[in-house]
Amino acid sequence: MKEIYVLRLGHRPARDKRVTTHVVLVARAFGAKGVYIEGNDENIIKTTLKVLNTWGGYSYFTIQTVNNGKEIVKKWKRDGGTVVHLTMYGINIADIENELEKIRYPLLIIVGSEKVEGWYYYNADYNVAISNQPHSEVAALAIFLDRIYKGRELYMEFGDARIKIIPQKVGKKVIKSG
Amino acid sequence: MKEIYVLRLGHRPARDKRVTTHVVLVARAFGAKGVYIEGNDENIIKTTLKVLNTWGGYSYFTIQTVNNGKEIVKKWKRDGGTVVHLTMYGINIADIENELEKIRYPLLIIVGSEKVEGWYYYNADYNVAISNQPHSEVAALAIFLDRIYKGRELYMEFGDARIKIIPQKVGKKVIKSG
Repeated sequence: MKEIYVLRLGHRPARDKRVTTHVVLVARAFGAKGVYIEGNDENIIKTTLKVLNTWGGYSYFTIQTVNNGKEIVKKWKRDGGTVVHLTMYGINIADIENELEKIRYPLLIIVGSEKVEGWYYYNADYNVAISNQPHSEVAALAIFLDRIYKGRELYMEFGDARIKIIPQKVGKKVIKSG
Repeated sequence: MKEIYVLRLGHRPARDKRVTTHVVLVARAFGAKGVYIEGNDENIIKTTLKVLNTWGGYSYFTIQTVNNGKEIVKKWKRDGGTVVHLTMYGINIADIENELEKIRYPLLIIVGSEKVEGWYYYNADYNVAISNQPHSEVAALAIFLDRIYKGRELYMEFGDARIKIIPQKVGKKVIKSG
């Protein structure tokens, strides 16, 4: 798995609870190693730990809240990593897939909530659009990670999972352990 | 564009407002022709019409609420269309991509919110997992449509758009008309 982290900007607990949770779950399921959440919200950390404990990832997936996303971006650049900001105003991912092959890791992927400050556009190494239409940061993150991992992320498994799905044509089947 | 519609089950206005909005926006941006929402919510229709009016799709994208999603599924099967239910318990999409090439349209894609009734598993033609990990119906819908359209959906444009993004390496550029 690659050194990929996600920075979720401007999280407001009441309004963004469920969408940010989806961002975190997509990050985990599609092969990121952790998420930084700009904002203060203990519940989302609790919810995530519960998922990690059941479905796996507890031993390495990290989640933490931060006061100011800019500090994370600055640190990332000081340390020689790459910063990608997902925005519908950026360059269509289909037009820069070759360039993305060559980026230096660790990679920080920024996803906003409402309006994102201009600072992030100027300080990101790449502003990448997952289509130039308005839709969802959850979908944008999923498609971006899918392009990075070329579909292999769909087979992700977690060694420390207590519950594992056995894919079925109809119905549900799981194996429990621990 | 293919004859694809999305059925969003169990929408509860207060709790699901934003996630269902993301489902609708992904449906539009990734090449579906409309969404059925099980539940009662005038606001989500208003929000959607506003987006269609500004960003395009007003002339053909349809959104409507329904009392019972089962009626839509029954109608779909009577009319000879295909019903796909997206669920993490299903067959991994990576393992049935060839089969999906051969499905009959119109296609109805079902996405749930919380727990989905067993009836849907039994009445769907395919239960498809976008990875067998828990994450997000928004991400699942995006990846599914991406596989159907093979990435071409990322270049979707809408003839009746009043605002159009000109992709930029840094910053925002739009053209307005009408």
